[in-house]
Amino acid sequence: MSTTVYAIGVTEENKNLHLIQIPRRAVGPNDVHIAIEYCGMCHSDLHHCRQEWGETKKPSVPGHEIVGKVTAVGSSVNKFKIGDAVGVGCFVDSCRTCPECKDHLIQYCANGVVGTYGAKTADAPGHTLGGYSQSIVVDQNYVLSIPSNLSLDAAAPLLCAGITVWSPMKHYGVKAGSKVAVLGLGGLGHMAVKFAKAFGAHVTVLSRSPSKSKEALDLGAENVLITSDATAFKAAARSFDFIVDTVSAEHDLASYLSLLRTDGTHILVGGSPDPFKLPAFALIPKRIKVGGSLVGGIKETQEMLDFCGKNNIVSEIELVKAGYAEKAWERMLKSDVKFRFVVDIKGSLGKDTVVDV
Amino acid sequence: MSTTVYAIGVTEENKNLHLIQIPRRAVGPNDVHIAIEYCGMCHSDLHHCRQEWGETKKPSVPGHEIVGKVTAVGSSVNKFKIGDAVGVGCFVDSCRTCPECKDHLIQYCANGVVGTYGAKTADAPGHTLGGYSQSIVVDQNYVLSIPSNLSLDAAAPLLCAGITVWSPMKHYGVKAGSKVAVLGLGGLGHMAVKFAKAFGAHVTVLSRSPSKSKEALDLGAENVLITSDATAFKAAARSFDFIVDTVSAEHDLASYLSLLRTDGTHILVGGSPDPFKLPAFALIPKRIKVGGSLVGGIKETQEMLDFCGKNNIVSEIELVKAGYAEKAWERMLKSDVKFRFVVDIKGSLGKDTVVDV
Repeated sequence: MSTTVYAIGVTEENKNLHLIQIPRRAVGPNDVHIAIEYCGMCHSDLHHCRQEWGETKKPSVPGHEIVGKVTAVGSSVNKFKIGDAVGVGCFVDSCRTCPECKDHLIQYCANGVVGTYGAKTADAPGHTLGGYSQSIVVDQNYVLSIPSNLSLDAAAPLLCAGITVWSPMKHYGVKAGSKVAVLGLGGLGHMAVKFAKAFGAHVTVLSRSPSKSKEALDLGAENVLITSDATAFKAAARSFDFIVDTVSAEHDLASYLSLLRTDGTHILVGGSPDPFKLPAFALIPKRIKVGGSLVGGIKETQEMLDFCGKNNIVSEIELVKAGYAEKAWERMLKSDVKFRFVVDIKGSLGKDTVVDV
Repeated sequence: MSTTVYAIGVTEENKNLHLIQIPRRAVGPNDVHIAIEYCGMCHSDLHHCRQEWGETKKPSVPGHEIVGKVTAVGSSVNKFKIGDAVGVGCFVDSCRTCPECKDHLIQYCANGVVGTYGAKTADAPGHTLGGYSQSIVVDQNYVLSIPSNLSLDAAAPLLCAGITVWSPMKHYGVKAGSKVAVLGLGGLGHMAVKFAKAFGAHVTVLSRSPSKSKEALDLGAENVLITSDATAFKAAARSFDFIVDTVSAEHDLASYLSLLRTDGTHILVGGSPDPFKLPAFALIPKRIKVGGSLVGGIKETQEMLDFCGKNNIVSEIELVKAGYAEKAWERMLKSDVKFRFVVDIKGSLGKDTVVDV
C-alpha cells in the first residue's frame, strides 16, 4: 500500500523550498522501506530545484545523501532487515542489462541511470522524489549498509560527496606514497583529503587564500599551496601525481596542469559550467591525462562505506533543521559551510515544518 | 676527429632549405657513427626551421626519422657493430639521472631531453643538428636497431610517426578487441591504423570527406566514419574505446568525445596550436579521459621496431630527393602526401645538391 509522507520541495506555485506531501510506493517484493533520519545537501539539489541544469518536473524533492533505518522489507529481500542502518545515494535504479550495469558501473548505465530525484519512474507522480522527505522505498540492490560505528548524520554525505571523490581516486590509482593535490576544500574536497590520507598519500590542499590553511591541516593535509602566490605556484611545478579538482566554478585548468608530474592525472569531478581551455601542449610533454568521474557504483560505494567503518571516517557536517534548508542553500552558494550541511529529517521534518526563506 | 659533412638546412642568411656543411663530433668511446641513408620528414621539421614554435639557433638542420648504417664505433660500444642497420629518433641524449630517465621514459626527461635537432649540446656549433645530413654521431644508448627484413627507407618514419602513436596506444591499453577510431589519416594516423590492426583491434578511420575511404580500408581499417555526415556521426555515439587524435589543426574535441564509450580514452598526439574547448560534462558522465603522449622512450621504440620486424610493418612513403625537400614541405602542409615523405639522403645528398624552392 502506497503511503503519503511529508517532504520539502518546490512546486509550480512556490519555487522556494516548502512543506509538501508526496506519495511513496507500496513496498514490493524486492523493496526496502526506509525511515529517513538525515539527508546531506549537495549543490546538485539546488541546481535541480532552481532548474539551472534544465527544466524539472514538479514537485521537485531533492536529496541524494540519504541515511535512515529500515522499517519494512519486501518478501524477497535478503540483504536487509528491519532496524538496519542504511543509505541511498544518487540513484535508485538502472537498466541492469547494459555492460556498465553488469560491470558494477551502474552510474554510467548506458540506458540512463534512475536518479534519486527528477528521474522518470513508474511510481507516482511519474518522477523520482529525493531524500528531503520522511521516507523512501528503494529496491534492495540500490541500498547501502552503513557500518554501525559511524554517526548516521555525518555518514550521510558519504553517499554523494564521499563516493564522488573515492571512486576516481581508486580508479585512477591514488595509493600510498602518491602526491595528491586537492583543489576546492568543500564537501567533496574535504573528503578527498581524508581519503587520500587514509590511503597513505601525501596531501596538499590548493587554496586561493591562506584563510583555509588551518582547516586543511586540521583535516590531515601535509601542505597548503596558496595558488595566488605566483612564486610558490611556480615552485610547485611538477609536484603532484594527482589533482582532485572539485571546483565547480570557472578556473584555469591549464595552469593547474603545470603542477602535475610526468604521467600525472587531473581528476575532474566538479562540473564547471563553461568549457575549460585545454592546450594540447599542457598534456603532451608530460603524458598527462584529464579524466572525469561521476559518483560511484553500488559495489564500490559499499566498499567505501566499509572502509570508512574500519577507519572511522565520516564527513565534517553542520546539522540543520528542515526549516533552515533554503537558508542553508544560500550559505552553500557562498561556500559558507564546514563542510557539508545535513538536514535533520527525523528531528525536524513533519506537519509543522515551516521553511524560512 | 670531428668531420664536416653535407646537410640541408636553413641559416640566418637563407631561410629556405639549402645545402650547407656542418660539423660532426669525433666518435667517442660510447658513440656510434652512422652514415645516414634515409630521413623521414616530420611536420616538426618545418615548424622548427620556420621558427613557428619559437626562435631557433642557426644553422638549423632538421630530421629525426633517421636510418642508416654504422660506419664506426667507439671503444666501449657493445650494442652495435660496423654495418648494422640502425635508427635515431627524436632525441640523442638525456640527463640519465631523473626518475623519468631511469624509468625508460627518456622522452619526458625532467631535466630536458636533448632533441635530435635544435637542442643545446657541447658539440659544435652548440646545438644539435638533425638527419637531413650525410652522417650523425650518437651515443649508443640512444641508437635503435632496425630489423633486417624491413626496408630502410620505409622504416625511417617509424622513429617518430610510428612511435608517437605506438607509445600511447600501448600505454593507454589498446588491445585485441578494442574499438579504435583514428582521427587524421596522415603520417601518424596511417601508422595508428596499422598498429591497431596488428594488435587485433577493430579500427575505424574518422574522416571529414569520403575521399579517404578507400585508402583507409586499404590500410586495414574496418570502417570509415564520415564526420561531416551528422546522422552517421550521431549514430556513432558511444562507439569507441579509444580515439587516436593525430590532427594538429584546430578541431572540436568535445564533439569527438561523444563517440567514446564509458571509460573511453581520447589520445592526443597532434599538437593543435589553439587550446581545445573541453566541457567538464563531456568527461564526467562517461568517466572519459583525455591523455597526451610524446613520442616514446628508447626501450619501447626498440620493442616497436622488433614488433614491426616480426609483423612486417613499415610506413607508406614517398621517397624524394634532397633537392625536393622544400617542395615536399609545401605539399606536406597541404596533406598532399601518402603518407610520409622520406628523403633519399644516400642517393641524393652531396656537394651538388640544389634544393628547389
